[in-house]
Amino acid sequence: MSDKSAFARLDPLFQPKSVAIIGASETPGKIGRLIMEQFLKMEFPILYPINPRGKDVLGIKAFPRITDVPGPVDMAMVLTPTDAALAAVKECAAKGVKLIVLTTSGFSEAGTKGRKIEQEMVRVAHEGGARIIGPNCVGIYSPAARLPFPLGQAREKGTVGLVSQSGFFADYLTLTTSANGIYFSKAVSCGNEADLNAIDFLEYLGEDPDTHMIVSYLEGIKDGRRFFDVARAVSRKKPIILWKGGVTEAGAAAAVSHTGALSGSRKVWEGALRQAGVISVKSFEEVVDCLYAFHLQPIPAGKRVGIVSGPGGMAVGATDTCLDLGLEVPPFSKQMQARLRKVIPRVGGSAGNPTDLSITSFVAPDVYRDAIRIVAGEEAIDMILVISATNGDQMRDMILDAMGGLRKPIVLTLMAGTTQSVARDVPVLLKAGIPVYTDAARAVKALSRLWEYARFRRRWALEEGRRHS
Amino acid sequence: MSDKSAFARLDPLFQPKSVAIIGASETPGKIGRLIMEQFLKMEFPILYPINPRGKDVLGIKAFPRITDVPGPVDMAMVLTPTDAALAAVKECAAKGVKLIVLTTSGFSEAGTKGRKIEQEMVRVAHEGGARIIGPNCVGIYSPAARLPFPLGQAREKGTVGLVSQSGFFADYLTLTTSANGIYFSKAVSCGNEADLNAIDFLEYLGEDPDTHMIVSYLEGIKDGRRFFDVARAVSRKKPIILWKGGVTEAGAAAAVSHTGALSGSRKVWEGALRQAGVISVKSFEEVVDCLYAFHLQPIPAGKRVGIVSGPGGMAVGATDTCLDLGLEVPPFSKQMQARLRKVIPRVGGSAGNPTDLSITSFVAPDVYRDAIRIVAGEEAIDMILVISATNGDQMRDMILDAMGGLRKPIVLTLMAGTTQSVARDVPVLLKAGIPVYTDAARAVKALSRLWEYARFRRRWALEEGRRHS
Repeated sequence: MSDKSAFARLDPLFQPKSVAIIGASETPGKIGRLIMEQFLKMEFPILYPINPRGKDVLGIKAFPRITDVPGPVDMAMVLTPTDAALAAVKECAAKGVKLIVLTTSGFSEAGTKGRKIEQEMVRVAHEGGARIIGPNCVGIYSPAARLPFPLGQAREKGTVGLVSQSGFFADYLTLTTSANGIYFSKAVSCGNEADLNAIDFLEYLGEDPDTHMIVSYLEGIKDGRRFFDVARAVSRKKPIILWKGGVTEAGAAAAVSHTGALSGSRKVWEGALRQAGVISVKSFEEVVDCLYAFHLQPIPAGKRVGIVSGPGGMAVGATDTCLDLGLEVPPFSKQMQARLRKVIPRVGGSAGNPTDLSITSFVAPDVYRDAIRIVAGEEAIDMILVISATNGDQMRDMILDAMGGLRKPIVLTLMAGTTQSVARDVPVLLKAGIPVYTDAARAVKALSRLWEYARFRRRWALEEGRRHS
Repeated sequence: MSDKSAFARLDPLFQPKSVAIIGASETPGKIGRLIMEQFLKMEFPILYPINPRGKDVLGIKAFPRITDVPGPVDMAMVLTPTDAALAAVKECAAKGVKLIVLTTSGFSEAGTKGRKIEQEMVRVAHEGGARIIGPNCVGIYSPAARLPFPLGQAREKGTVGLVSQSGFFADYLTLTTSANGIYFSKAVSCGNEADLNAIDFLEYLGEDPDTHMIVSYLEGIKDGRRFFDVARAVSRKKPIILWKGGVTEAGAAAAVSHTGALSGSRKVWEGALRQAGVISVKSFEEVVDCLYAFHLQPIPAGKRVGIVSGPGGMAVGATDTCLDLGLEVPPFSKQMQARLRKVIPRVGGSAGNPTDLSITSFVAPDVYRDAIRIVAGEEAIDMILVISATNGDQMRDMILDAMGGLRKPIVLTLMAGTTQSVARDVPVLLKAGIPVYTDAARAVKALSRLWEYARFRRRWALEEGRRHS
């Protein structure tokens, strides 16, 4: 560790000018081909395929060994078989590579012997002045630096940062959400963490001005004390959504064979994360649901939810969920109800909270616009949940119209057709900045996490106040 | 109430030979047109549009009043404005209609005056020998009887029954799931329940041989004692998945203005439902998730889950969820592990439980077939969770191949592309009989509900045993 900030230490590694792919291949189905294709799709400028026969790969001049490359190489991706990885690392070190991304697996997650080889690779790399990400990882996705993940993510730059010990989590989450217009600053898959680890990346993303929030999947933490300090410091600057895997006995055993990580009990973790101000979630979908809300909406000033719904039954259930999760669905004032009564259908509608637009809203959906405007404009309401049975484009236009200038979180539950038609509408809404969910309970849960972060902020403000008084 | 069984009393009402639509219309966007279109799509045989001017509707001969219809009318749907409904009911009674579906709203859910009109409508109907469903409902969807819901469901007959006090819940759930090949015997939306109520329909579906399981959304129950008795008796014959809305104070207030129902507290309800052997869920998505598992899979013999996964991190998280929900993910025997080691990738894979097929499975997915076959064949495993990163068609074929002849529940978590590609694959898998989820936590939750029902059954068997000994 140097005295420099995490940003000063790590940011140069995230901006390589030249990359060598050790194990590049033309054979379809090989990871060495997949990675090459993704680098080409990203139009990464200086790419050196490395393979034993030195045969060109996808039209790019290749070299038998990285030491044969004429110019400097900033970063190398190692895709070799397990028993060839140490030799590859040695050559990278000899070449003066700054960052080695070890995709190859079969080390500490496979047992003691693997752990020793990892240690040797780190020793060799450090001697040559290189740092290692991995092994057993997919490395870095950075649209700004044109660094790809294997599955083929968007090229657009965004403001979401990601740190994951699971390569699949990193790769799949960025794939699916970037296809829906949620773009990333930097995403890192850190695998077994033989050298650089999740805490380093969390600290880096915390200091990175391009990153406004962080999502993370972790199994084991090498240094609990440091993790806790970093997480607490970063959370005060930007929200961290964390899914911690391996928090039950059987889950922890599975984590050992997955990334070689030692984890801890759910109870201990949840307490520590709450203490640090981290939003702790329990599943992939919950990560995505929270990501939508935190990325697209402001933090609420309070916990009072206004519900506007066409389908009445769904609003009753959503009200239950709000109460279950510590939110409020306060009755509207007489004046509010009078205003609502002017726009909602006389028969079958209800001007309360939830506001029931009745079955008429299915055929005349414009009523949503008016009702959302009235509810969102109410001072005694901090967040808005819309439950819609109309199509995505229409709903997008009505929400954007109704919310103009207001800085309150709004989320949408879309029940406007079959699985397929809803899936078609989801990107339309997300790209317009509207968090969308196919179930009201999930939408409410996302709102409750925004409120959780607002409560953390209040606590921090109080602590600050005490410190300065 | 007569002494006849619920089935004998109600089944004739569910099989009308002729239907009058009071308030039928040709005007686009009107409910009177929507309903007419759906009856025509269902090819319902004898249809009488009723509207004041007696003008033909969509090419079908209409009548100014139901009493003008020459032949008998078994069922009438009333779609009139609120203040015309009582008169329509009177005419139905005069005509000798057996069942009146009152879609019109604005009665007990709107206040005391509406409640009185409801009572008057019931009195008039009973005098004429008719029963009422509703008001404030969408009535009956029955593919066998060619009775439609407004949104346009599948025409195929199935074995799932549905009872709902929310018209939207009934309409939307049957729409989305029937588009995915989950077909219904009878679905009833009973609204304000001025006459026939949810308990009547639950009892009827319980006795109905075409119905193998029941899903339900309820807000208020008029007779708690009878509901409890019926639910307990029906649950022993077929699973009931129930979402009870209005179980918090604010939720209950919302329910009053939705269906005029008085509800109760969550704690009381959950205890009573568990006692009755009902599977109690908390959201729309949870109803659907459970419906898939219960409809497509057998009830497990125990709680031991075997997990087969390509994405390692997702398997760690799923293991946590299993443990959180009272399931087990037991270690595999040495023999099992040896068998698995023969088929899974040597590097990056893990032959434990969960079985990690490694990143190789993304490019060579055939390994799923072999691994599922070995895990599913293991006597010490009661249920199988597959977490897949391969496409729906391939996964369907592999699961069907591997599960041939085995009677154990299997569920699939599909993470094979973007929101859109997964939505495209979902119907393929469901139609093949494989419950599919986009999140492992939801898949595990569904398994845990199958196990919950298995536990209910054990309790009932013990009680039976005691009674006979």
